[in-house]
Amino acid sequence: VLKIEILTTGDEVLEGLITDTNSAHIAREVAPFGVVVRRVTAVGDTLEELRDALLEISARADVCVMTGGLGPTSDDLTLDALALAAGVPLAVDEGLWEEIQRIYLGRGRVPPSNRAQARVPRGGVALRSAVGTAPGMRLTLNGCEVFAYPGVPEELYWHCEQTLLPYLAARLNVALHRRTLRVCLLGESRLYDLLRPLSLPPEVRVGYQALHVEVRLKLSSPSRDALERAEALIADALNREAPGHLISHHDRSLPQALVALLTARDLTAGCAESCTGGAVSAALAGVPGASAALRGGVVAYSNDVKRALLGVRDETLAAHGAVSEACALEMARGARAALGVDWALAVTGVAGPGGGTPEKPVGTVWFAWAGPHGAEAERRALKGDRERIQRVAAHEALFGLWRRLSAGGAPREVTDA
Amino acid sequence: VLKIEILTTGDEVLEGLITDTNSAHIAREVAPFGVVVRRVTAVGDTLEELRDALLEISARADVCVMTGGLGPTSDDLTLDALALAAGVPLAVDEGLWEEIQRIYLGRGRVPPSNRAQARVPRGGVALRSAVGTAPGMRLTLNGCEVFAYPGVPEELYWHCEQTLLPYLAARLNVALHRRTLRVCLLGESRLYDLLRPLSLPPEVRVGYQALHVEVRLKLSSPSRDALERAEALIADALNREAPGHLISHHDRSLPQALVALLTARDLTAGCAESCTGGAVSAALAGVPGASAALRGGVVAYSNDVKRALLGVRDETLAAHGAVSEACALEMARGARAALGVDWALAVTGVAGPGGGTPEKPVGTVWFAWAGPHGAEAERRALKGDRERIQRVAAHEALFGLWRRLSAGGAPREVTDA
Repeated sequence: VLKIEILTTGDEVLEGLITDTNSAHIAREVAPFGVVVRRVTAVGDTLEELRDALLEISARADVCVMTGGLGPTSDDLTLDALALAAGVPLAVDEGLWEEIQRIYLGRGRVPPSNRAQARVPRGGVALRSAVGTAPGMRLTLNGCEVFAYPGVPEELYWHCEQTLLPYLAARLNVALHRRTLRVCLLGESRLYDLLRPLSLPPEVRVGYQALHVEVRLKLSSPSRDALERAEALIADALNREAPGHLISHHDRSLPQALVALLTARDLTAGCAESCTGGAVSAALAGVPGASAALRGGVVAYSNDVKRALLGVRDETLAAHGAVSEACALEMARGARAALGVDWALAVTGVAGPGGGTPEKPVGTVWFAWAGPHGAEAERRALKGDRERIQRVAAHEALFGLWRRLSAGGAPREVTDA
Repeated sequence: VLKIEILTTGDEVLEGLITDTNSAHIAREVAPFGVVVRRVTAVGDTLEELRDALLEISARADVCVMTGGLGPTSDDLTLDALALAAGVPLAVDEGLWEEIQRIYLGRGRVPPSNRAQARVPRGGVALRSAVGTAPGMRLTLNGCEVFAYPGVPEELYWHCEQTLLPYLAARLNVALHRRTLRVCLLGESRLYDLLRPLSLPPEVRVGYQALHVEVRLKLSSPSRDALERAEALIADALNREAPGHLISHHDRSLPQALVALLTARDLTAGCAESCTGGAVSAALAGVPGASAALRGGVVAYSNDVKRALLGVRDETLAAHGAVSEACALEMARGARAALGVDWALAVTGVAGPGGGTPEKPVGTVWFAWAGPHGAEAERRALKGDRERIQRVAAHEALFGLWRRLSAGGAPREVTDA
């Protein structure tokens, strides 16, 4: 088994100013090759610490991915540490320096300090990047392949994709096919239990990444055919056991998928929100191109606004309260009329921490969806703190519309392709 | 100087399923003592790897903070690794086991596997926790003080505060006074440049933590008097150079501070949002108790909704467009009337990536605030992608209200105390 370790440099990480998210990214990217990172080490910006760490790691591992320390300042010691650890000289590569200057031209004068980024330890190979100006560096140290990448996440991601994964594919002699599905409002453990009984082709690897209320399901396989069979089995199981929860075969979030679906069907939507306070609208508005589907919304936090802008009736509020089926339905119908949309979503509930009662404890949320064929309401008992209740409630509101647009079956995902 | 290292255990971290945020927390907590973490090491859940890492670290460091691996399953090897590294036996402490069972009683039957959490390596001291059921463990290994804490963030935070920091205070013979200020919409580097020239008392340490559009400014000092002098100097400088940007002396966010200020003055607020799509309202609604101040809002994403619900005039849209001073002012005045609030905030702009023109490029945003004495508008040219433009625009809208409520001077923060 290939032994990979990660070495992270930078005082910002050790002082807690930056959380190291790069290591998790690298670990997720190499996992499909069956490779598990053995150790992650973070050290500060001193030459001795870096050299020691490089020597320790190169004695243990086959591959070392090093992040950070490739900038132009005196704190950036990665190239120096590589040369020191390898016992080789470090010299400016004039061809590389010219390239860096060319990249810089569009941004104005090249600071002379950037010349330090054109240094190459003897035996090292500079890794040109299409993102940012700092080249990466590859060097064999005690038989260990060291890949040094910039710590800026976008640059690191680029290098991972363009230089690390191809190296692993070649060294392990596998070319991987990949597919990322998105599942919403289904806990990671429930999803795991649902998929565990499936007889997936053994060469397909399944990785889980929990986002806030969605899970990213990463499939990878050396065989395209096996990948597609696994994808079909997973989609069948989900569509049977948890209809609608499989949102995308192309790594789209629920708001993204919903905006695409509404746009493709030439439908407009709007929201009437109480306890989510605008989060449903904001989630839709966060999608580029949302204006094709989202007309607007009413944040009816107070009962006055529910009455004035949504036409919720005094009798409804008096008889049932604002957190009720009747109020949710009137909010949705009122929003549909006031906003002039095809579909209106309504949310009203108790987000807490105050405001709960025995009949309507914190977490009680009523939803309603009003469309061309009438309105429907549903109630949920959500758990967690205010932030979580608001977040899940916003997602539930969107999910209710998603399910209704699918008319009983799985909604067909709309893709650009 | 005290040498501290962190050892993180757990396959989830090495597989990239979890991002290690605990290490950054620990680093930030120990920094006020003048202590910098020298190295962070993450290893998987195998006994040998854990033992090796413990032996290496104990040979280098004075203090090792270990996180994770204290749960009840067979993957949880921290106690075993400590005993193995120290060469001492590991045995159940029956008194500790009874305590764990007592804690569990409220939650139902105690799983027998939890008995493993009551084991103590000879010479170790169990660290009882008021949060969660897993005790921490303290053990001296080769002269290095090892503190092993659960990996669950809330439990780790508790232990940091209750067992690690008191240990450091005693060992370094300092008791620290602390204060956390919040500054909004001022870049970290600009803030740094503003504060650098100040002659702060040398015993005061200043730490920066960048949040999304706010910066947390952490002051700490062994002298309460010096801390208060530093705080006053910083507040003076900020109130002079960047009036209003110092939002809180008690670690409150802008939405939190604003809801407290509105509530204390018995004022109500509402929003009219186009490009932010509900994010301004949602930020206010995210604050517990927001209902005392927030009445509601209108998300007027389309021009139809701007006309229908906010009374924006056809001529205004025709002559100036939706992203204009005139439209922002009409939106704010319209929202003030429609929502029946003391103060209304309006935002209309080009969030991108599409929709930009030479006169109104992506990032152009008009704001307006309508209050008891009239309405005012301001324009900003924001940078970044759609997400960043929406986030900064939402904060700018709130900040404009904050400044207006302060009537020229620094708003007096409202606190519960």
